[in-house]
Amino acid sequence: MSTSSRSSPMATAQIDTLKLISKEYHDFNGSHYDILHRSSTPLGFSRLVHISRPVLFKSCVVPDATSRWTNEYLVNSMGERSISIAVTPNGRADAITCGKDGRLYFAEPHVESMTMRTFLDKLSAEPKFCKTSAGDSEVYYLQSQNGNLFAARYFDLSGEPDPSVFEPLRRDVPSEISWCTEALGRSPEAVNLWIGNSRSVTSMHSDPYENIYSVVRGAKHFTLLPPTEAWCVKERTYPHARFQRSQATSQLELVPSPPRAPSIRWSSVQDPTSPGALPPEAHPIHITVRAGETLYLPAGWWHYVRQSELTIAINYWYDMESRGMSWVWHNFLRGSGDPPSGNQDDR
Amino acid sequence: MSTSSRSSPMATAQIDTLKLISKEYHDFNGSHYDILHRSSTPLGFSRLVHISRPVLFKSCVVPDATSRWTNEYLVNSMGERSISIAVTPNGRADAITCGKDGRLYFAEPHVESMTMRTFLDKLSAEPKFCKTSAGDSEVYYLQSQNGNLFAARYFDLSGEPDPSVFEPLRRDVPSEISWCTEALGRSPEAVNLWIGNSRSVTSMHSDPYENIYSVVRGAKHFTLLPPTEAWCVKERTYPHARFQRSQATSQLELVPSPPRAPSIRWSSVQDPTSPGALPPEAHPIHITVRAGETLYLPAGWWHYVRQSELTIAINYWYDMESRGMSWVWHNFLRGSGDPPSGNQDDR
Repeated sequence: MSTSSRSSPMATAQIDTLKLISKEYHDFNGSHYDILHRSSTPLGFSRLVHISRPVLFKSCVVPDATSRWTNEYLVNSMGERSISIAVTPNGRADAITCGKDGRLYFAEPHVESMTMRTFLDKLSAEPKFCKTSAGDSEVYYLQSQNGNLFAARYFDLSGEPDPSVFEPLRRDVPSEISWCTEALGRSPEAVNLWIGNSRSVTSMHSDPYENIYSVVRGAKHFTLLPPTEAWCVKERTYPHARFQRSQATSQLELVPSPPRAPSIRWSSVQDPTSPGALPPEAHPIHITVRAGETLYLPAGWWHYVRQSELTIAINYWYDMESRGMSWVWHNFLRGSGDPPSGNQDDR
Repeated sequence: MSTSSRSSPMATAQIDTLKLISKEYHDFNGSHYDILHRSSTPLGFSRLVHISRPVLFKSCVVPDATSRWTNEYLVNSMGERSISIAVTPNGRADAITCGKDGRLYFAEPHVESMTMRTFLDKLSAEPKFCKTSAGDSEVYYLQSQNGNLFAARYFDLSGEPDPSVFEPLRRDVPSEISWCTEALGRSPEAVNLWIGNSRSVTSMHSDPYENIYSVVRGAKHFTLLPPTEAWCVKERTYPHARFQRSQATSQLELVPSPPRAPSIRWSSVQDPTSPGALPPEAHPIHITVRAGETLYLPAGWWHYVRQSELTIAINYWYDMESRGMSWVWHNFLRGSGDPPSGNQDDR
């Protein structure tokens, strides 16, 4: 194993450099984040993007229309439309999960179609912590992340339609945040609706997007690390797998993808809030975003997200600036080349 | 020497990392720079600062009033006021110079006081390339760089005066560029007047300032390297020295400062336009800024500057954003710790 870590690009010397950089970054910036009580302006937001630190907006960024999003309103608006819901036995979609063979996999969720009524009923049901019958303890999360409200096509000039199954909810949601669009000089790449409860967790990862994350109901609990602490999330490569429902038992089973499927680079830190999960040099920032509040999560920041109750959120992903240093910097901080396998036997 | 380079923080492994980063930066950005035909807006400039690439503004950023800056106008405006002029035997103020002892020094210029008339007469005189009498071949450069037109004090709210010997010229020069000030959320740290000719050279260096460089008369020839190519300028440490006029001979002599004076970290590349002076991996960008044009030179970019004739310029230095990653990034790219001595015998 020491041979493998020497031959890895994340060798000791490189880790030492990254540790120095992350210490210096923290010495300069601390764990501070701004709290603003009104939404921004194009210029104000452009400055915030340059500084690239999280900002909590206490004011409503997404207009009040979403405040009427009771279960009843959502069910009535959506009617019999069929929506795609991620289903897992453990609430960890797109996360590292142990397979029956004892190996660790990057597990994508099973996806089931259902009406909004069925989905919200499942979310609101008291979770049963012992499996009494198939599906009882399964975790449901609306997290399709594909621009389910508005996709890039909605904004382009081709005239091609951008249909959304959530079309009845579009009237309540602006397709873009005007001061972000103007600041960045581009429309969103995706606008997503998220609905889940305390049993769903978003595992530690980072995105190449400037992220505007508005909570409509409930509360989101973010654990953040700056891009300089990429080394703390201990990325590894994992084989790909997907939860599938067994026809025999109706239970979800983790089915490894064929070996030719590309392996996935992902953080090996399953729960950064668990003591000892992060190295002592890490400086996680904990931010709770409540209904009516919005988090600006800058591109490249690592985030782990939980909800404490039934939570509805809308997020706007804007492509990060590709000119200049940002890409190079983020790539460097993640370490060049592929990280070692997350399964020790593979090393 | 190999021992010294191993023990230096700029050791082989670190140089290899910096080479990779600079290659990746160039792969992403090339040697492109924007040319804009009108001045910017606060938001437009904020975006440019985030991208942090040079921009040549073909339009007038400093208003037309300076177009009347003939020698006669300058002489009449300044009258008998005494201005501080840098004098060197070689045109290289604030640069690496060989002392009589054969050692290399960071040499500050001798400073002489004279009227604008005397100064412009000296600049306009045909240079004599052999020294026939004291001072004949000396090089004069108005380059005081201390906010000679407007210093930070001018903008603060203390009410303290900010006197300038160039007060008669202030009426022709805006104290700040409104769209820069608004974009950056701060007033300039210094506004400087520069007057020199083809015999003066500004040696390769970088500043922690966003720099707006407007040429009023003549032309400035910039050779630029991005912050990622800091390793190409081969910084070394040099003992400090200053040109002083010998009372005996009236000639300028380079006088080393007392050994307790801190040594200076400076590029050992004397002329980056000379073949072989830069490593083959360097990608210098050459930009000529002519009268009426303005260069945005982002913080941390390395620059070497010449003039081809009598050239007058005004530059605005704005403090770079200290929050976020810029400082850390620039520090890292320059290599941590002190570089080795520029005098091989000292190593």
